[in-house]
Amino acid sequence: MLIEKVKSAGIAHNSYFIGSNNEAAVIDPRRDCDVYLDIARANNMRITHIFETHRNEDYVIGSQELASLSGAEIYHGAQLDFAYGRSAFHGDEFRIGELELTVIETPGHTEESLSVVAREKPGSEPLMVFTGDALLAGDAGRTDFYGPDNRTRMSTLLYESIFEKILPLGDGVIVCPAHGAGSVCGTNIADREYTTIGFEKTANPLLGMTRDEFIRAKSTEHHYYPPYFRKMEELNKNGAPRLRHLPEPMALSAADVEQLRSGIVQMIDIRSVTGFAGAHIPGSLSLPREILPVYAGWLIRYEDPIVLIDDYNHGLHEIVSALIRLGYDNVIGYLANGFPAWFRSGGAIASVGLLDAVGAHEKIRSGSPFILDVRAIEAWETVGHIPGARHVYLGELPDRIAEIPAAGEIIVYCDAGFKGNAAASLLEKAGHDHVWNLLGGMGAWQQAGFSVEQ
Amino acid sequence: MLIEKVKSAGIAHNSYFIGSNNEAAVIDPRRDCDVYLDIARANNMRITHIFETHRNEDYVIGSQELASLSGAEIYHGAQLDFAYGRSAFHGDEFRIGELELTVIETPGHTEESLSVVAREKPGSEPLMVFTGDALLAGDAGRTDFYGPDNRTRMSTLLYESIFEKILPLGDGVIVCPAHGAGSVCGTNIADREYTTIGFEKTANPLLGMTRDEFIRAKSTEHHYYPPYFRKMEELNKNGAPRLRHLPEPMALSAADVEQLRSGIVQMIDIRSVTGFAGAHIPGSLSLPREILPVYAGWLIRYEDPIVLIDDYNHGLHEIVSALIRLGYDNVIGYLANGFPAWFRSGGAIASVGLLDAVGAHEKIRSGSPFILDVRAIEAWETVGHIPGARHVYLGELPDRIAEIPAAGEIIVYCDAGFKGNAAASLLEKAGHDHVWNLLGGMGAWQQAGFSVEQ
Amino acid sequence: MLIEKVKSAGIAHNSYFIGSNNEAAVIDPRRDCDVYLDIARANNMRITHIFETHRNEDYVIGSQELASLSGAEIYHGAQLDFAYGRSAFHGDEFRIGELELTVIETPGHTEESLSVVAREKPGSEPLMVFTGDALLAGDAGRTDFYGPDNRTRMSTLLYESIFEKILPLGDGVIVCPAHGAGSVCGTNIADREYTTIGFEKTANPLLGMTRDEFIRAKSTEHHYYPPYFRKMEELNKNGAPRLRHLPEPMALSAADVEQLRSGIVQMIDIRSVTGFAGAHIPGSLSLPREILPVYAGWLIRYEDPIVLIDDYNHGLHEIVSALIRLGYDNVIGYLANGFPAWFRSGGAIASVGLLDAVGAHEKIRSGSPFILDVRAIEAWETVGHIPGARHVYLGELPDRIAEIPAAGEIIVYCDAGFKGNAAASLLEKAGHDHVWNLLGGMGAWQQAGFSVEQ
Amino acid sequence: MLIEKVKSAGIAHNSYFIGSNNEAAVIDPRRDCDVYLDIARANNMRITHIFETHRNEDYVIGSQELASLSGAEIYHGAQLDFAYGRSAFHGDEFRIGELELTVIETPGHTEESLSVVAREKPGSEPLMVFTGDALLAGDAGRTDFYGPDNRTRMSTLLYESIFEKILPLGDGVIVCPAHGAGSVCGTNIADREYTTIGFEKTANPLLGMTRDEFIRAKSTEHHYYPPYFRKMEELNKNGAPRLRHLPEPMALSAADVEQLRSGIVQMIDIRSVTGFAGAHIPGSLSLPREILPVYAGWLIRYEDPIVLIDDYNHGLHEIVSALIRLGYDNVIGYLANGFPAWFRSGGAIASVGLLDAVGAHEKIRSGSPFILDVRAIEAWETVGHIPGARHVYLGELPDRIAEIPAAGEIIVYCDAGFKGNAAASLLEKAGHDHVWNLLGGMGAWQQAGFSVEQ
Repeated sequence: MLIEKVKSAGIAHNSYFIGSNNEAAVIDPRRDCDVYLDIARANNMRITHIFETHRNEDYVIGSQELASLSGAEIYHGAQLDFAYGRSAFHGDEFRIGELELTVIETPGHTEESLSVVAREKPGSEPLMVFTGDALLAGDAGRTDFYGPDNRTRMSTLLYESIFEKILPLGDGVIVCPAHGAGSVCGTNIADREYTTIGFEKTANPLLGMTRDEFIRAKSTEHHYYPPYFRKMEELNKNGAPRLRHLPEPMALSAADVEQLRSGIVQMIDIRSVTGFAGAHIPGSLSLPREILPVYAGWLIRYEDPIVLIDDYNHGLHEIVSALIRLGYDNVIGYLANGFPAWFRSGGAIASVGLLDAVGAHEKIRSGSPFILDVRAIEAWETVGHIPGARHVYLGELPDRIAEIPAAGEIIVYCDAGFKGNAAASLLEKAGHDHVWNLLGGMGAWQQAGFSVEQ
Repeated sequence: MLIEKVKSAGIAHNSYFIGSNNEAAVIDPRRDCDVYLDIARANNMRITHIFETHRNEDYVIGSQELASLSGAEIYHGAQLDFAYGRSAFHGDEFRIGELELTVIETPGHTEESLSVVAREKPGSEPLMVFTGDALLAGDAGRTDFYGPDNRTRMSTLLYESIFEKILPLGDGVIVCPAHGAGSVCGTNIADREYTTIGFEKTANPLLGMTRDEFIRAKSTEHHYYPPYFRKMEELNKNGAPRLRHLPEPMALSAADVEQLRSGIVQMIDIRSVTGFAGAHIPGSLSLPREILPVYAGWLIRYEDPIVLIDDYNHGLHEIVSALIRLGYDNVIGYLANGFPAWFRSGGAIASVGLLDAVGAHEKIRSGSPFILDVRAIEAWETVGHIPGARHVYLGELPDRIAEIPAAGEIIVYCDAGFKGNAAASLLEKAGHDHVWNLLGGMGAWQQAGFSVEQ
Repeated sequence: MLIEKVKSAGIAHNSYFIGSNNEAAVIDPRRDCDVYLDIARANNMRITHIFETHRNEDYVIGSQELASLSGAEIYHGAQLDFAYGRSAFHGDEFRIGELELTVIETPGHTEESLSVVAREKPGSEPLMVFTGDALLAGDAGRTDFYGPDNRTRMSTLLYESIFEKILPLGDGVIVCPAHGAGSVCGTNIADREYTTIGFEKTANPLLGMTRDEFIRAKSTEHHYYPPYFRKMEELNKNGAPRLRHLPEPMALSAADVEQLRSGIVQMIDIRSVTGFAGAHIPGSLSLPREILPVYAGWLIRYEDPIVLIDDYNHGLHEIVSALIRLGYDNVIGYLANGFPAWFRSGGAIASVGLLDAVGAHEKIRSGSPFILDVRAIEAWETVGHIPGARHVYLGELPDRIAEIPAAGEIIVYCDAGFKGNAAASLLEKAGHDHVWNLLGGMGAWQQAGFSVEQ
Repeated sequence: MLIEKVKSAGIAHNSYFIGSNNEAAVIDPRRDCDVYLDIARANNMRITHIFETHRNEDYVIGSQELASLSGAEIYHGAQLDFAYGRSAFHGDEFRIGELELTVIETPGHTEESLSVVAREKPGSEPLMVFTGDALLAGDAGRTDFYGPDNRTRMSTLLYESIFEKILPLGDGVIVCPAHGAGSVCGTNIADREYTTIGFEKTANPLLGMTRDEFIRAKSTEHHYYPPYFRKMEELNKNGAPRLRHLPEPMALSAADVEQLRSGIVQMIDIRSVTGFAGAHIPGSLSLPREILPVYAGWLIRYEDPIVLIDDYNHGLHEIVSALIRLGYDNVIGYLANGFPAWFRSGGAIASVGLLDAVGAHEKIRSGSPFILDVRAIEAWETVGHIPGARHVYLGELPDRIAEIPAAGEIIVYCDAGFKGNAAASLLEKAGHDHVWNLLGGMGAWQQAGFSVEQ
């Protein structure tokens, strides 16, 4: 028996490869799917089944990509009219070598959500359960996708799926969810690598609630809904274009980039916060690697080509992969030899001022900058904010940029400094001249002991 | 939180890397320990603690090697007088980043055996337990190391360790044992990658027994005790020589090998069963990769140099690693360009006849070969044997070779054909001319429907 | 400036990546072309030009594959009507970063052959020349592709290309040919990794000849023309199907293989000579890795699916790559877990007897086996043969198998034992029962001092 | 025959692996020598000989390290009293498989310099020559190591070595020098990957000179002599400490670093120029990866521990390797999780202002900053400088820091911006508050068309 978790960083997505003898199944494959073929080959297995736990909205699923390369059949929930694959119903059983996989329908996060229970052999006790976005470590899936009118209904469905179908499988069953800590699919996901039903019962606050408490909690959670979700849902229902080979972005000289930057090209600077702040190509958008997968869907357009700016172009394929997982197949090039090529060629630069907490405090005290908080609203509400700050969530900043005063100094801040840099680059692009970013964000501010407003 | 299982194939040994924030512990590290440094570096962690669950007897532990490279402290059970490291006692607590590791003493397999319980933070519920050779998936550790007089005592200790200390941790706790399926440390280890206390309660036959049944079962199990165990115990108590760098065997030409083979050098042919059977250097020992780690300790001497014979010398470092894990630091060379270099240079060859079940049956029917069964005695007893066969376990064959008639045809067989080949090579070396190996072994014989004697 | 040689083992093919600043050209790319994209990416270069030195006949060129992934333009000689790419003429100049590449037409091997001269900058002295199959290390290209009537004409063209266009570039110019030692495109190619015009003048016997000697030598050389050459010529003129992703062969269980082997599937056993000889699936063809790329084109059919049999399935992708380079896109599967899976499942086996020289000599002396020599005719003629042997070249054996007597023992031999094994497997398939292969071949025979007939 | 060039970036050092059959020699191995063992193993070769072309002064040679792992013998020139290895004399011949290597003494760069000529077999024409620092592509070795009084003598020796011993080998001979473009061992080394004697005759300006011109040119070249050269000479004469395993720096938390930075620890920030400029730990030294190997020897102390600061700690082992090649075995740790860990923990930051040419010009025009040029003196002399600038070479800045005015704004510049950043960090450490670095350096200045003073 072989079980491997394949993690896609950034979106904190987990997919699973489970095999026995010479057969294997993949749960929720990602689109850059060579990783599963590699595992299959290394273990002399043939991927025969692909299960989608639900129509995902935060990334493009790779089922069709993998099916076309491996010959596997795709199965997903029957409650949605997918344009490909087969419907699996509650109780359906599948043999993978000696293993038995059984489908249980676990709606709530979405209508058609299902979970897959693995047994070592037909009829034996359950060993693992792949819960998709139903039960997560320390959390459970969002229930807000069908609008306010359906939240109670979906939350109720989720309660029943978890408490009546998953938990009864037994305390010793290992839980394999589709997301880990950091996903936009849950706010409180714990970072334990492995968990069990028994452990979740003690550690997952939702599992200690009554039915009513659970439904109320899930119905009133706040979640952002990034604009790219709509596109993901579309692609995942109807099938994304086949890739077969990762896009190969072109090496662009500084002169090429200089020429492109006046056009529609989106220049995405993936360098560190400090690298961008020190100097960057005027007009580029700061999306450091750390936050790129989470904020691309808010800030990058699908219709215009993308050019990447990095320091050393190291691991650029990972960035391209991260983007194609979100449906961005339009990375056309990258600045060859990295940002140094730009300044070696004498290119013009812009900078963002960085402040530590003491510096920011001093600037606030001595001047009267506009203070912009771009964190998620939950942080604003639970942690509090710098006195005098105004809140606009980073994801919504492009649409609300007019709310920022056109003149004067601006101090932007977020949790740690990454989103603040992205915001600073948006502001710069919108013509704001004197933008500072509080490096370390609210964390540094609190650490320094400065006052916080609730 | 990071948890990674590092498996050493062949000896089916599991070690574990567990970390949080920038700190990490390693449980039962192997001697070629760069793998842990690589994980540490990739995750920006410092290995601060090394735990030995017990003084191992089936491989050389790498604690000191890893400690010398990482600066970590070594901890092991207090009931044995180790020449290095520190004693850990029941209830000792250690912080690894946010994690808490707690030692519980779980004797039975050995006197000083301990288990390590992991909690996400101090005081929270147990999440995982590293059980060493106490509780295994589907099995429990051997209790025969202290001689027949102590079997009941040790089995009783093991019962108490498992039933009174490990199982009470809770059904949802993930179990991380030191061995997987295929280890010489347990006969019935299941091949599930992950398991839990809850699952073991349903699936591990030993856990369904009463106290008396358990003690009786463990006290009467049969286990082989390979001669190298003594050396492992010695090295693991007193500390093995530091490696720092894997031995780098010399490329030897066919002429070099021809010259060496008259001396004390042990020529170990690691090629496939069929490759060795087709042709080999007269006098070489057949230990295909598949069984090398398990039978090296029976058939290879520590005091004489080793030369490896392979087809393509692919992955030779893995073989060298497998051997240094057993304390064989004496691989001095390998036949450069593989076995083809031997026959290209006109070297003399010997062969072993291979038979399928039909061929073996025909040969037995038509002649009267000596039939030699070299399987473990359990297989002889439980599965039965080919009518007329004589049993000598492969590991004991060198000492009992005089029991084999000097003249006439010999058919040797085992479970699948690997051990049979090793036996054939031992017989050839002892001067037996007409040795056949039943390819597919007892499995093929049964599949063909030929009669089996109990 | 960056220059990298990419070697494809087996067919001994060299392609070259040459770049400067952010631009690069590839000379004669192979079909599995990710290697060039990897080099380009690692060096921040964009592949802008692809040069084909000629329409190759021994492998499928990857120009279109690479062009479709990189956006590069393809250039080849104007004297052939290619269905894709552009014509390059003598004197055409191309800029690659600071480099200048100049085309010189160097027909002889084929009508449209060209060479590419590299200079560090426009107008500087030539530094390197990519000679395709015109000038090789120690040899020059074959001139027999246009039939006997054209050999003198083609040899004359080749003489003029080499002596009047390449050699005058200067002694210090580095020569980068399209083939290394072992290629079917030349009999005497030397194995020096790098060479120069100056060095070739002293070491290449053809360059010491007069015009007449050269033309006579090249016109009278013997070369085999494997049947697959015709297909390669077709594909290379009109363009091969796009791959984008290597075919992913299916893991097949022993039961699957058992079922397939009665059909049209070609079972190709790529294990070592001795592995196949020891035991193999009856009816499989022995093509050890060492000779697969050279003899596949003689012995494997394009129209029927291929299943691979290996020991450990290690590096199977390299085998698939080697085959797609020859246009075999029809590898559908491989025996999962290798040959041991076959015998573990109780599958029937066949064997080939292996003899060393002493054994073969004894068998010939004591019996009267049919002795079959399957080497290239040049070896038969220049080295001599075992007294009493009959010559049938391995490549022609399938068509001439009726020439081998149906009954009685057969000893087959070749140069070292590889081709002999392939022949033995063909004979077995044709119903010959008692086939022996002389391991070490003629080399071992000579080494042992046995008599050779001229 | 196998020949592989192993390049060590940064110091632009070339070493070579040359082998035949199962034997190999390594020329000028580096200290992190697994790369040679890997090549040897992959090609089934035994390294039997190590040649040092001379006692190097710019890096620690790995001969003894490699010898201790491979069993090879070390050979070097007889004109220096090495504490290890054997002396090789002019005309000494060595067999490596079929190859013949011949030593020719080629003093000039150092007294004991030798070159190694490779022939395919004894008595054949020379194919390659390993010239050490005698003949380089486009240049020849420095002759200033024995002081002013010996420059003419050493230059004369070098002339004779090149013109009377190397060039006569023949135009077609491939030249394999010990350094490529970027080395401190030559100012004008060309970046061609491969070269030949014939090509150098046309392209290397020194080879077109008369004896007198050559001697005059070499005797009057300017070279810097970094302080670490003395240590390299010492280690290379007497043998460096054995490593066996790369040092494994510890993961340090931000709190650890905060604690260490008040002590003797040297905090080396290897991030990009812009990353350091944006924000850095006050008191750290900016040595971006691009210039670390070249300036470490000027700016890092051997006696105090080193802590590395990076963005993502990617490829940290390469940095550790680069440092141990210079004898820095004292890297004790690195900031775990990179610079973001620093600001996430609320650490204080400092910044360096970056200016593009327009920005620098404006600042100079509008204020009166002190302008500091830290380039090599050759650049100052040949390219010219920004009007009003003062020249202090970066390497000499620590000793001459008192020459910089204590108050007021400083604009520092170099060729492209890297050395300028290092200088800015030195100035900051010395208490200068208002330091700007011209990003793009003199190149950007010229590109912008601003005036240059000669």
